Amino acid sequence: MIHMDRPIVRIEPIGIVRSPLTRLEDAPMQGDEGAPEAWLELTPQTAPALKGLTAGDELIVLTWLHLAQRDVLEVHPRGDLNRPLTGVFATRSPDRPNPIGLHRVSVLEIEAQRLRVAPLEAIDGTPIIDIKPVLVGSDPSER
Amino acid sequence: MIHMDRPIVRIEPIGIVRSPLTRLEDAPMQGDEGAPEAWLELTPQTAPALKGLTAGDELIVLTWLHLAQRDVLEVHPRGDLNRPLTGVFATRSPDRPNPIGLHRVSVLEIEAQRLRVAPLEAIDGTPIIDIKPVLVGSDPSER
Repeated sequence: MIHMDRPIVRIEPIGIVRSPLTRLEDAPMQGDEGAPEAWLELTPQTAPALKGLTAGDELIVLTWLHLAQRDVLEVHPRGDLNRPLTGVFATRSPDRPNPIGLHRVSVLEIEAQRLRVAPLEAIDGTPIIDIKPVLVGSDPSER
Repeated sequence: MIHMDRPIVRIEPIGIVRSPLTRLEDAPMQGDEGAPEAWLELTPQTAPALKGLTAGDELIVLTWLHLAQRDVLEVHPRGDLNRPLTGVFATRSPDRPNPIGLHRVSVLEIEAQRLRVAPLEAIDGTPIIDIKPVLVGSDPSER
């Protein structure tokens, strides 16, 4: 049941992950657990929105974890059956109603329509839905 | 043009923000710029995914900034015309192709189907699309 004030949201991916990681079972659970470099390939329409980014920037990449299960509400954290069933909103499980991945990465290289970043645990072919700079401190001038 | 491997993504909001902020022009740009407390009201279907959250937890709330303009690719950061036009992926502008808001909040109180949190700069009626815990350090046992 969707209320009038909770409409369906339609997202068009802004790009796609190109990575040497091609199998979910080879992907680390988090970027800082040994994830490789990857390219973020933007669509021609959205590439102008990269203007101003430079190598060395720290970004938060939002992805759509397209292989996740959306009907899962509780999991054993990190798949450890010794840990009690926990609501997915209290975990970073990819399985959740709206499987959006958050990935903190560093920019290594920029071309007109793509960025090389690291580390990124998302597999090859994962849709990218947004890119944001990491906020530095609370000084608005740094944002 | 959408490629076969970049399909449209359909998101069903998991809940809605209930806030004393009702006008966009009254909302601060970031939570740490004086944003108030708010309630996150979950749908009955997704409320079980809150299991395990407790007051004091630090969360990242993902919202759909439903009043944003999706056809904007470049902005003057923070609306300051003295700053050069910058690609929206290099800014936290709400106007962007997929206007997803990221909000770091503390949990103040939990009921069966809603959470009281602060600070939150999203206005009343903003759809909520995901909730995740903040990752602490790099020790997997802390996640």
